[in-house]
Amino acid sequence: MTTPKRWKIALILLTAFLSKQTIHSQTAVPAKAREYRIAHQTQIVDEFASLLALPNLATDKANIRRNADAIRTMLEKRGVTAKLLEVPDSPPIVYGEMSAPGRKHTLVFYVHYDGQPVDASQWTTPPWVPTIRDKALEDGGKAMRLTELPQALPPETRIYARSAGDDKAPIQALMSALDALKAANISPSVNLKFFFEGEEEAGSGHLPDAIRQYADLLHADAWILCDGPVHQSRRMELSFGARGVVDLEMTIYGPARVLHSGHYGNWAPNPGSLMANLLASMRDDNAHIKIAGFYDDVRPLTDSERAAIQAMPDIDGSLRNELALAWTEGSPSSLAMQIMQPALNIRGIEVGHVGAKTQNAISTEARASIDFRLVPDESPDKVKALVERHIQQQGFYIMHQTPTLDERRAHPRIVKLDWGSGYPAARTSIDLPVSRAVISNVESTRGGPIVIVPSSGGSVPMYLFTDVLKTPVISFPIANHDDNQHAANENLRLQNLWDGIEMFAGLIAGVENNWK
Amino acid sequence: MTTPKRWKIALILLTAFLSKQTIHSQTAVPAKAREYRIAHQTQIVDEFASLLALPNLATDKANIRRNADAIRTMLEKRGVTAKLLEVPDSPPIVYGEMSAPGRKHTLVFYVHYDGQPVDASQWTTPPWVPTIRDKALEDGGKAMRLTELPQALPPETRIYARSAGDDKAPIQALMSALDALKAANISPSVNLKFFFEGEEEAGSGHLPDAIRQYADLLHADAWILCDGPVHQSRRMELSFGARGVVDLEMTIYGPARVLHSGHYGNWAPNPGSLMANLLASMRDDNAHIKIAGFYDDVRPLTDSERAAIQAMPDIDGSLRNELALAWTEGSPSSLAMQIMQPALNIRGIEVGHVGAKTQNAISTEARASIDFRLVPDESPDKVKALVERHIQQQGFYIMHQTPTLDERRAHPRIVKLDWGSGYPAARTSIDLPVSRAVISNVESTRGGPIVIVPSSGGSVPMYLFTDVLKTPVISFPIANHDDNQHAANENLRLQNLWDGIEMFAGLIAGVENNWK
Repeated sequence: MTTPKRWKIALILLTAFLSKQTIHSQTAVPAKAREYRIAHQTQIVDEFASLLALPNLATDKANIRRNADAIRTMLEKRGVTAKLLEVPDSPPIVYGEMSAPGRKHTLVFYVHYDGQPVDASQWTTPPWVPTIRDKALEDGGKAMRLTELPQALPPETRIYARSAGDDKAPIQALMSALDALKAANISPSVNLKFFFEGEEEAGSGHLPDAIRQYADLLHADAWILCDGPVHQSRRMELSFGARGVVDLEMTIYGPARVLHSGHYGNWAPNPGSLMANLLASMRDDNAHIKIAGFYDDVRPLTDSERAAIQAMPDIDGSLRNELALAWTEGSPSSLAMQIMQPALNIRGIEVGHVGAKTQNAISTEARASIDFRLVPDESPDKVKALVERHIQQQGFYIMHQTPTLDERRAHPRIVKLDWGSGYPAARTSIDLPVSRAVISNVESTRGGPIVIVPSSGGSVPMYLFTDVLKTPVISFPIANHDDNQHAANENLRLQNLWDGIEMFAGLIAGVENNWK
Repeated sequence: MTTPKRWKIALILLTAFLSKQTIHSQTAVPAKAREYRIAHQTQIVDEFASLLALPNLATDKANIRRNADAIRTMLEKRGVTAKLLEVPDSPPIVYGEMSAPGRKHTLVFYVHYDGQPVDASQWTTPPWVPTIRDKALEDGGKAMRLTELPQALPPETRIYARSAGDDKAPIQALMSALDALKAANISPSVNLKFFFEGEEEAGSGHLPDAIRQYADLLHADAWILCDGPVHQSRRMELSFGARGVVDLEMTIYGPARVLHSGHYGNWAPNPGSLMANLLASMRDDNAHIKIAGFYDDVRPLTDSERAAIQAMPDIDGSLRNELALAWTEGSPSSLAMQIMQPALNIRGIEVGHVGAKTQNAISTEARASIDFRLVPDESPDKVKALVERHIQQQGFYIMHQTPTLDERRAHPRIVKLDWGSGYPAARTSIDLPVSRAVISNVESTRGGPIVIVPSSGGSVPMYLFTDVLKTPVISFPIANHDDNQHAANENLRLQNLWDGIEMFAGLIAGVENNWK
């Protein structure tokens, strides 16, 4: 045989081998992963507890680096080529690569390993002393010794520690998924990259720089964002977008000193009244934004997105009851549908005093704090321009610094605007081949309905991936919805970890087969 | 002569005697009072300082009664029949009568002897240690010993003590005016009553009861209210009314717990937005109240009132400059004209947080504090009804106590309204004979233009006199406008005390001659 011929045969054999292995994984992966997990339960929890025992505030330089080193070691143990990506004055990003020979697609898994600050006095057991309980603390959960875990764990068994849910759980789930696949001799169906950030809870201040600096490493078909909890119904959830955000602080000025409301009331401009009237000109009771042009750039929902929203579990009724609400803005439109629109949220208004502290006085200024939630394809800069034009049309003179007294003497109705920089929304089409592949993979692994969220209402800078890196993003959370994220007694329900291992194993081993 | 004849002659002689004395007093009273004052300057200041040395918080039961006793003694020293009018749980009212034989008209002088609470740490010299200074503290005024006062005092000499201006000054001025008249052998031209209240600064909570309880004592042609400062131009001022007031605290409810503005913004009702829209429905930027019917009962100004307002010194320009205002509500209408109208003043709005403390959150409630300033002939009860009708028309469900969670589940847009009891405005016509008499008397005593204010913008319960007792009220202040009323380092400019003595002497001795 000529050398090329020999190569050809080898390639055919390899392809046949891989195909066989693929077919195998398509049907058996979740079962294999479960088998592995049941056999290695204590070992998995033990490794997870070791990771959770490392204090992980982004500002705690020594400890946050201990986390990064530990995670790098965890990756290397699985044969992942790992390194720390350094950005000045920032916790390192733990980066890893694992290539799947002959596979053309690549997924990047994003997780963050830092956690929210803690108020240790509010924790039942210390935040970095991982503690297993047979059920939730609120339900009387009792601590269990790690070495005494029964084979069949009670279904609500949880591990309590800072970042148990947010966001170290997906790190452990991914590592154990790789272990399970290796034990079953199943190869990944896609090339894998891992991008574990260390300052998400501190605001991801260096993420934009890091993304741009290391863009060459980050080519991929999609980012899989593993953060946050699954749907309240406990169904698996995939989310394809997030709203953008722009913050605005407004200050309107009255007289230079506080005036008696009897002696000067309806002559001295009342800044509270000016603020109420300005806010009222911007938004009605039903969440409709009255600023001209605000909805011009809103991308209409696709039929698939509408269908996905229709298919979401209806939680509005139970939420209204829980929140003691007799009505909701935009009713009968659902929460899921409402957050597909931009929002003007009044976060705060501060004028003089109310109640027992009130004074018969006209205040010197009125302040309001707003966030605008943006949807595709609104740009923060255009939103700022539209808002400023609207405010000018209401008769205000806009300044971006505090006016002097002489400036106040010169201009009626001064408003000072302090804009946050903000960032745009991101939304990945659920009709992309990669989206369809991930959806059908997770559905088949799960073997039941999942929740497909075209966009979540909150804001995360997904645009860095979708707009800067031009890469689709799919959010794939695994934590329980009642994990006390950001609060005291944060926890992860172990069943959610088990599910995560199966889901990630299924995705890594099989997604290529769902790719059409 | 028959007895009736003898009586007739006696009456003629008496009338001639009184006429002579009246003519005398008409021309010479201010000069006589000045002569007396110059001769007794130290003695007057000494008596005043003794009164100011008595701590006079309405809540300080022992001391407030020492004030009442001291004032009663001061009255009795002048031949005034004095007693304490007791109302349970309240400082006594010091009441006095001095009849003028053969005179048909009666004036009641109202003054209050209690003072505002003090923060002693803010005072340069202690609040109840009266201290004379050769000019205002802000201008470097130096303390002078009482026994070393020069005959010709510097024009800005002031006495510093709590209540020096507000409101013990008129007590001293009245007493010294009586002394001056007696020394010059000039009899009062009217019957005199004195009504010195002891809890004005604590809110006059017992005044309505006292007025009703002692109504039989209080028959008079007019009340002369001696309180507050004269016009900023330092001209003498007579004021014929005050606005009424009704306070309102509003609370609008959002979700039962604070919600993430990204995940729930434009679905969960935003109480800040509801509050802004409600307030905007009630008042425009130019002080116009948009509540239907609000102006229906407003009594139009008379030609005399319009003329008086036109004749007032124009202080708007200097006030705008002082207050750093480029515009005023209702412009080009003046401050004096604006306060003749009712007002809706936003005193405070409180929703969530602004600035550094802001959170990406939808608040559980929004609160606003309002005062309505009323003018004749608006009634507090009707105003309350109009406001509630308006709020209902905006789609709100009104409650007067805090809603339970179940009530919040049952009713959309709940607003809780907490009304203060309030009281109506009062305005005495400047065209009444007594008004004309007092105006022309003060003008001739002063020998120069005075300021005639048809109504002041602030609220005092003058209605007790005008509506309950059906007696006209004229406000006749004597303190300097820069007396630090209610604040630390309160003071009275001694020239204002001297002026007060002359003005009161002129009024008491001569007003009958101005009565047409």
